[in-house]
Amino acid sequence: MITLKDAKAIADKELIRFGFTRDPVSLYEPIGYILSLGGKRLRPSLTLMAASIFGKGPEHAVPAACAIEVFHNFTLLHDDIMDQAPMRRGHPTVQVKWNTNTAILSGDAMLIEAFRILHGTRPDILPAVTEIFTQTALEVCEGQQYDMDYEKRDVISESEYLRMIELKTAVLIAASMKIGAICGGSDTREAELLYEAGRNIGLAFQLQDDLLDTYGDPEVFGKAIGGDILANKKTYLFVMASERSADSERKELLRLYSVTDMESETKISKVKGIFDACHTESITMDKIEYYLQQAKICFDALLTSEENRIQFSGLLDHLLGRKA
Amino acid sequence: MITLKDAKAIADKELIRFGFTRDPVSLYEPIGYILSLGGKRLRPSLTLMAASIFGKGPEHAVPAACAIEVFHNFTLLHDDIMDQAPMRRGHPTVQVKWNTNTAILSGDAMLIEAFRILHGTRPDILPAVTEIFTQTALEVCEGQQYDMDYEKRDVISESEYLRMIELKTAVLIAASMKIGAICGGSDTREAELLYEAGRNIGLAFQLQDDLLDTYGDPEVFGKAIGGDILANKKTYLFVMASERSADSERKELLRLYSVTDMESETKISKVKGIFDACHTESITMDKIEYYLQQAKICFDALLTSEENRIQFSGLLDHLLGRKA
Repeated sequence: MITLKDAKAIADKELIRFGFTRDPVSLYEPIGYILSLGGKRLRPSLTLMAASIFGKGPEHAVPAACAIEVFHNFTLLHDDIMDQAPMRRGHPTVQVKWNTNTAILSGDAMLIEAFRILHGTRPDILPAVTEIFTQTALEVCEGQQYDMDYEKRDVISESEYLRMIELKTAVLIAASMKIGAICGGSDTREAELLYEAGRNIGLAFQLQDDLLDTYGDPEVFGKAIGGDILANKKTYLFVMASERSADSERKELLRLYSVTDMESETKISKVKGIFDACHTESITMDKIEYYLQQAKICFDALLTSEENRIQFSGLLDHLLGRKA
Repeated sequence: MITLKDAKAIADKELIRFGFTRDPVSLYEPIGYILSLGGKRLRPSLTLMAASIFGKGPEHAVPAACAIEVFHNFTLLHDDIMDQAPMRRGHPTVQVKWNTNTAILSGDAMLIEAFRILHGTRPDILPAVTEIFTQTALEVCEGQQYDMDYEKRDVISESEYLRMIELKTAVLIAASMKIGAICGGSDTREAELLYEAGRNIGLAFQLQDDLLDTYGDPEVFGKAIGGDILANKKTYLFVMASERSADSERKELLRLYSVTDMESETKISKVKGIFDACHTESITMDKIEYYLQQAKICFDALLTSEENRIQFSGLLDHLLGRKA
């Protein structure tokens, strides 16, 4: 199996080749811009790594890997409009640097580009790859819609929340690995095992993100603590606290999530107090551990070489920001 | 060849089958809504009619025809956001009936659905069909971007304007016919001739729309005269008038296109006066006739049966609202 570092280098190099310097500049420049903001290239790297386990090698997965990364960045571009986000990876978002109409239209062109790139996949596997890609792309939209729907609701069940993050985040990571497997020449069982591994990794990944916002070390986490709380974002911690708290605490939590003029430190401290009382930190950590174990079971069933198992295990630790 | 009426009936029936009644309702309902607003179903009808000229019959073109119509309606949905249009076909637009975020996200899902439907095309022709579809979809975005760019400019040359409407409108009509031909079993030359015919029809179609806004009979046209003038929309008439008028008239035209508080009748009358002085009506009519002749040359080179030639000729007259 190729390393994460090598996979990222391939993804970076191949993405640059598309250029996006065509006319009209006002349409294509924002696409090049958002892709140039970097990021971990996690999804295409997983595609290339998954492909490299099997016989055909990662080069057969290059179009799909690039298509997945372009699609992922398209979702960021349009999500930033919907969230009215001013910044993305330390730079102005497209709708701030240009304008909302440009962000809508460049995003549309970017989604079409993702399909154009995907269609460069080997013809014999193209139908299978396009089916997973298209189904997953729709699911990501569904997840975003549930997220917006839930913003307007006070009560969200654990299963509703988990299904939402599964659609919004986990299925694309799952599809990245499954598509990589197919491009590499896997059989159906192997592709399904990697999908299931990716789905569990994606869920763990999102819950870790929720956890770190409140309980992370700001130096390691790389951003201020409590951002989700200040934005009244309903994370797994919020869902767990509202499910497990007494009526009076739940009401107080909802009240805190409706105010916008409270001093930041006070608000974070009060909400965190309720989270603490409900043991949301340990509950969330247990849930993350559960999903990681599920992912490892899939890897163990799939990977015949001890070396590959160790490498995927190290990858998980790396993704979750843990010391190997 | 099947008739336009029969082709439209097939398109209507097949589009209904997709339903768009899945969860989340808030994502899929707007897609069903915009598709239910009707319209002429011109593009899928052309696809089915083109397919029926050749050996395999129109049923092979059904997925592509539906994909093209879903794509076309997606562009309307997102264009309505960008234009802040309140109404579409006599009904509230999606961003008015729901909200802007729903319109963005439902549009995204609709674009993905268009590809999902397209991927149902027969595998042996799928690579050719997806290549034209994807290239055309990008060109439509490019046309919309040029249109937005030109709104901010005083001077647009005739060739710039024609290239813009070619991208925004004509290439999708061209692709509808070419894709239909391929699905029906045409050879490359036949497919190219239908593309060229469709491109010319699309250009004639858009120029006719520009013409009727100022010189149409409101009873026949179905909407008030001068809408483009009041919206300061730079049509072919505007481009021709600004190219052909003296400096003082051009300045007056630009001044009229910058005011927003002038009484409607006065503004339309003043602009129309400049258009009249530049003979824009006859210039535009000549240009439409030119494109129709070009389309007919393509048909004559392609269609071996006199019956098919007469039917396509009648179709053109029908599309342009002329008595057959």
